[in-house]
Amino acid sequence: MAVPKKTSAIKSTSQHLLGIQNLSIIESKKILEEAKAFISLNRSASKKLDILRGKTQINLFFEPSTRTQSSFDLAGKRLGADVMTMNVSNSALKKGETLMDTAMTLNAMHPDIIVIRHQDSGAPNLLSQKVNCAVINAGDGQREHPTQALLDALTIINRKGKIEGLKIAICGDILHSRVARSNIYLMNMLGAEVNVIGPKTLMPSSVERLGVKSFTDMKKGLDKCDIVMMLRLQNERMQGTFLPSKREYYEFFGLTPEKLRFASKDALIMHPGPMNRGVEIDTKLADDINVSLVKEQVELGVAVRMACLKIYCK
Amino acid sequence: MAVPKKTSAIKSTSQHLLGIQNLSIIESKKILEEAKAFISLNRSASKKLDILRGKTQINLFFEPSTRTQSSFDLAGKRLGADVMTMNVSNSALKKGETLMDTAMTLNAMHPDIIVIRHQDSGAPNLLSQKVNCAVINAGDGQREHPTQALLDALTIINRKGKIEGLKIAICGDILHSRVARSNIYLMNMLGAEVNVIGPKTLMPSSVERLGVKSFTDMKKGLDKCDIVMMLRLQNERMQGTFLPSKREYYEFFGLTPEKLRFASKDALIMHPGPMNRGVEIDTKLADDINVSLVKEQVELGVAVRMACLKIYCK
Amino acid sequence: MAVPKKTSAIKSTSQHLLGIQNLSIIESKKILEEAKAFISLNRSASKKLDILRGKTQINLFFEPSTRTQSSFDLAGKRLGADVMTMNVSNSALKKGETLMDTAMTLNAMHPDIIVIRHQDSGAPNLLSQKVNCAVINAGDGQREHPTQALLDALTIINRKGKIEGLKIAICGDILHSRVARSNIYLMNMLGAEVNVIGPKTLMPSSVERLGVKSFTDMKKGLDKCDIVMMLRLQNERMQGTFLPSKREYYEFFGLTPEKLRFASKDALIMHPGPMNRGVEIDTKLADDINVSLVKEQVELGVAVRMACLKIYCK
Repeated sequence: MAVPKKTSAIKSTSQHLLGIQNLSIIESKKILEEAKAFISLNRSASKKLDILRGKTQINLFFEPSTRTQSSFDLAGKRLGADVMTMNVSNSALKKGETLMDTAMTLNAMHPDIIVIRHQDSGAPNLLSQKVNCAVINAGDGQREHPTQALLDALTIINRKGKIEGLKIAICGDILHSRVARSNIYLMNMLGAEVNVIGPKTLMPSSVERLGVKSFTDMKKGLDKCDIVMMLRLQNERMQGTFLPSKREYYEFFGLTPEKLRFASKDALIMHPGPMNRGVEIDTKLADDINVSLVKEQVELGVAVRMACLKIYCK
Repeated sequence: MAVPKKTSAIKSTSQHLLGIQNLSIIESKKILEEAKAFISLNRSASKKLDILRGKTQINLFFEPSTRTQSSFDLAGKRLGADVMTMNVSNSALKKGETLMDTAMTLNAMHPDIIVIRHQDSGAPNLLSQKVNCAVINAGDGQREHPTQALLDALTIINRKGKIEGLKIAICGDILHSRVARSNIYLMNMLGAEVNVIGPKTLMPSSVERLGVKSFTDMKKGLDKCDIVMMLRLQNERMQGTFLPSKREYYEFFGLTPEKLRFASKDALIMHPGPMNRGVEIDTKLADDINVSLVKEQVELGVAVRMACLKIYCK
Repeated sequence: MAVPKKTSAIKSTSQHLLGIQNLSIIESKKILEEAKAFISLNRSASKKLDILRGKTQINLFFEPSTRTQSSFDLAGKRLGADVMTMNVSNSALKKGETLMDTAMTLNAMHPDIIVIRHQDSGAPNLLSQKVNCAVINAGDGQREHPTQALLDALTIINRKGKIEGLKIAICGDILHSRVARSNIYLMNMLGAEVNVIGPKTLMPSSVERLGVKSFTDMKKGLDKCDIVMMLRLQNERMQGTFLPSKREYYEFFGLTPEKLRFASKDALIMHPGPMNRGVEIDTKLADDINVSLVKEQVELGVAVRMACLKIYCK
């Protein structure tokens, strides 16, 4: 974790939100602070501001997404922006070239902000070098999903009052997860202690370098944890080389009431969604409003995206 | 027809519009009354109000639809709402679970109203139990399509001045039609006499219990009718067990100028669209502006949806 | 070129923008003049007007399109219109009937303007006869793409100060190109001299009747040209009867720095996009901001569409 060089920054070093790795503590806290104000707006009867009136927001989604796309769409509209969403089918397109030609075309139309999701790691960075507007990464390959980590942080702060000093477990397919990566960076930066738990085949080889402790045993990994973040298991991992079977995965790594008892007494559960009920999480546990923060994550997600749009939109 | 218990209600007993069956006479008349004001707005040069400014409307369509979706989309935008439309492909999804997880996710984003179309009867009811916002049913399986019946009622009132005392024929695939069901409930409630006409294989077994007379002969069924509502014949019924052939269907149940003569002299024709020209209706008759109300139904549909959005949006 | 009869018109003879062929010089110049004002608006920090507030714009796209659809979408939103975009899959539909039934349905919803792209030549004309609102052709079959020609004209004027007296080459698949047709009409009308260049198999038989000179040799065709417009080569032409191979096409008709030297010393390059790099144009040349106007074409495209929406929207 290369935290020191970032904490020294006082102002945003970047005009883009490409990843938590590029974010200073001050920037992170500013986003979280701004987002808090939007939580209550979203709960009120009238959810409309004129902050981004006259601004153009383009949602450029190369991968399908229900919740992230909806969340950014509503966030922009509630701030008064003109929002245009483009779902770019990738099947017929040559990657790379397409992204750049699409970027050049959209940039010429003078958007103020582009929200991009792409299956290739680093695509938002490439895009940001070619356009004049701000770029927000809404998930790139297996690299980062910064607004997911920020909404997770806001959700934890909303419930636990802080992140500093907490012990947070991230469980599942750490290897392929951009959610895990962004959360490791952010939770570490904000002063939490992070455990990652998963089968060896789904664990990056030198994950400890990211400043976490790594476990293959839920009992040990969950010990004294205040927050248990479950990751979505991609269907394509569930057979073949990575995992023997869904059933066996659930047996060892699926979060059940029994396994949750290994964690702290008042531990709370999170999941970025959509959930594979009965695979990575017990379905009753997922819906238990006493311990599951899943709904709150979605709710505060809109507030976090509103904050990001407000801050990065020039 | 369980009308009595509903007529006693003075205020809306429900915060959702799930079906005509759940609606009182007073509620129906209130929607129709509100809708009248929007007819002239939609015909004017400037079609924009701020009534729903600050409100979020989500159109959640699990079945594709051109006219109903467009109608709700324009209705919401003209009232100033922030409108987000989601076309949810069902192919890859497990039904039920998906609806509920999608509902939970969307609900957490604080919409004020969700307009839902779903292939399963009862899906909007299920949804309404899980969300905090108002739900409007835009068609569910073979159950109800309440805004279609309401726009049909408004169209009739607009032309005939009333519904009470009229004789209305509904012709075609009564068995599978949510449009037929909603219209039977509403026209009955508003004091019309309703005949249903169709082949035996497409007629519910004890349809008379709904308060209608049932016919398999167009000549008898259309006798003295003021309104002839034709239903769309789904392509999947046109072969196999339900119907011998399109040609034979047209011969016996397709509305032609000859068959229309069995009805009242000044009878008017309706169709919810899209029409199968040459199957359930003669193409010239469909376009004859002296007898066909098809265009007017679409036009007043926007007004009815505006009224529903205004009334149900909290 | 039947220019004379058009130049006599002082006011718009049409309420629709169906093609450059139906446009007078005065109308063309009015659109270009209006568009100029929008160039600077689009470059400013706040890009929002209320000119079309209360108006409904429907984008009806029967063919997929990224840039034209985005351009019209943003143009309408920036002018304050309620914009609804419909992507109509054609696979399942019977052509013709569908267009007309869709048109009738949409027209009944009282749009103020319909922007249509359709694979059949003449579809926008047919549509315009059936609706009460203004129709803008966003590309129909192999006939016209008037807003593309208008944005090309605006781009040339923006750089060269005028069109009159310029020599313009249009190169590639003239036979199938609606962009070529609209540009031939418009550039001729505005006083340019037009050369068309392409292989014989992709050249209309009596193209000279349109008022152009025709060449099969780039060297001769580009001689003294101030503007070189390259056309997109459709993938479906690249094999079989029209062309032997991509490679051979590039050899003879692909624009390279070498071939560009045949043109005027300060010649500028245009392309309607999306480009087939290495087929009709050298990739470095396409990106060379000293000679390539590709980005500017996209940029000014939004301004031209805003002007058209403003002028034609009743």
